[in-house]
Amino acid sequence: MTKILILGGGGMIGQKLARRITEHNIFDGVELTLFDRAFPKNGVITKTVMGNIADATMAQTLAASRPDVIFHLAAIVSGEAETKFDLGWDVNMMAMWHLLNAIKTEHDASEGTYRPRVVFTSSIAVYGGPYPDKIDDSFLSAPLTSYGAQKAACELMITDFSRKGFIDGISLRLPTICVRPGKANAAASSFFSGIIREPLNGIVAVLPVADTVRHWHASPRVAAQFLTHAATLDTDLLNGRRALNLPGVSCTVAEQIEALRNAAGQDAVDLIKLKLDPTIMQIVDGWPRDFNPKQAVALGFVAESSFDEIIKVYIHDDLKA
Amino acid sequence: MTKILILGGGGMIGQKLARRITEHNIFDGVELTLFDRAFPKNGVITKTVMGNIADATMAQTLAASRPDVIFHLAAIVSGEAETKFDLGWDVNMMAMWHLLNAIKTEHDASEGTYRPRVVFTSSIAVYGGPYPDKIDDSFLSAPLTSYGAQKAACELMITDFSRKGFIDGISLRLPTICVRPGKANAAASSFFSGIIREPLNGIVAVLPVADTVRHWHASPRVAAQFLTHAATLDTDLLNGRRALNLPGVSCTVAEQIEALRNAAGQDAVDLIKLKLDPTIMQIVDGWPRDFNPKQAVALGFVAESSFDEIIKVYIHDDLKA
Repeated sequence: MTKILILGGGGMIGQKLARRITEHNIFDGVELTLFDRAFPKNGVITKTVMGNIADATMAQTLAASRPDVIFHLAAIVSGEAETKFDLGWDVNMMAMWHLLNAIKTEHDASEGTYRPRVVFTSSIAVYGGPYPDKIDDSFLSAPLTSYGAQKAACELMITDFSRKGFIDGISLRLPTICVRPGKANAAASSFFSGIIREPLNGIVAVLPVADTVRHWHASPRVAAQFLTHAATLDTDLLNGRRALNLPGVSCTVAEQIEALRNAAGQDAVDLIKLKLDPTIMQIVDGWPRDFNPKQAVALGFVAESSFDEIIKVYIHDDLKA
Repeated sequence: MTKILILGGGGMIGQKLARRITEHNIFDGVELTLFDRAFPKNGVITKTVMGNIADATMAQTLAASRPDVIFHLAAIVSGEAETKFDLGWDVNMMAMWHLLNAIKTEHDASEGTYRPRVVFTSSIAVYGGPYPDKIDDSFLSAPLTSYGAQKAACELMITDFSRKGFIDGISLRLPTICVRPGKANAAASSFFSGIIREPLNGIVAVLPVADTVRHWHASPRVAAQFLTHAATLDTDLLNGRRALNLPGVSCTVAEQIEALRNAAGQDAVDLIKLKLDPTIMQIVDGWPRDFNPKQAVALGFVAESSFDEIIKVYIHDDLKA
């Protein structure tokens, strides 16, 4: 029986992950707890805990239940972390600090036998330009957003707490997850999903950047697969490099739109309206465009191979649901 | 009149920096305050404040005096941060967090007019192997010590608080400073100074690693020059990349010993006794060996060009003093 805790379990990825864990026999019997500020109606049916991840006492309570695997997905998204500076650092960095220290307390109390797997959703926002054509595994992390800086700081803590043996951690620098179901969120990347999702639902979508923008994507389904793969991986194979660039699809917005045309025709494409937004353009301009994620590929992480495929996943998993 | 605060002003580099600031007319009139847990007898004569940098209230008090330039040199050294895990994170990371937030409070209270230059002594310990032959400015930071992880986390904060305009910060990844005057300290790198300093003072020195170990060095004099150069630099030239690899001398321990022979003869060299220390060997094995610090060189940072020169600086500045 594996005791699993998902922080941010009420969010879109958290729910996909919870569903994957309950529907597939990955862990050979699980006791699953989801933690979040709120949960969706009709969400995954399992034990849930409501609370604020930035509360140090809450971190202690969560660690005291000694989960075998902790998925840390809880975050203030990039756009909000940019406008609410203090909140972003508090939730995106200090909460990790509290959590790791709470786990260390349990580790010490157990005389070192408690050492959970911690899987953290980092982001390609840890990178900042100027970039090479393809970012390889040894390229520097020089974030240009608070969100990226917070994620990168968490990666450092996870690696060091792991090196010391208090946890067995891994940070996944997720591509921009696309096509997100449901409503747009405050992430600066939200439109990448919007321009596909809204037209497929017969709704107008706003494109706030030029269609020449190139970016790096994977589907929510793949994100959930990345997370369970990371939870079951032999971390000795990481050789101490515990923050991974993951595979994904590199394409331009124009190529995304072309894939939409393939899937749903010109009528769908006509629902995309260009309305440039300087704030979003500036944030997105600092984001990576393409990767050569050699280490993750060698470790067996697999993403889609085209944006057409990413759209098909959305249609299958979410549009029809 | 420039108001200057040196955190860690009682340490070896802090004192060299204070002396350089008081003896050279770099800032066109200064009001200098040194902060530390303790100060040396016969140290630089100026205003001093005693306290613990990890105390959040102390950070507020220090920031409330609104220094124009803050040099942050205070740290738990690498060896001690490795054995005292909590203390290391507390002093080397959380103290920076408290300081930056205290500065931000002053920034906000001043309606944005207070925005000090913050010069932080980071370290090449932010790097971890495997390495290329020469580390260039775009190589990843993957520290293999708690000290390195803490320094790297501080760099991220400094860059983000700077990007937001709360401070005007710069992080200097100092080479291993050598030859340190005075006594050996708990830094794993302490022996690099010891094997030169002790023999020049007629004392036996222990070499805890093989003489094939290659590392990256600069003198204390150069460290003080780096710091004042960073304090007066046009930070727009950094293009947002506010953590700098600095120039230095790449040499093996054997080459260091050869330079000692050039300076003081075989009798001095005979005072070096090889006694391998597995703990130090393991830490040092993860350290960088050589750099191509293009950005810093272009910005006018200058180091020694040979280890012979580094020894001459010690003899001139410290041995004779």
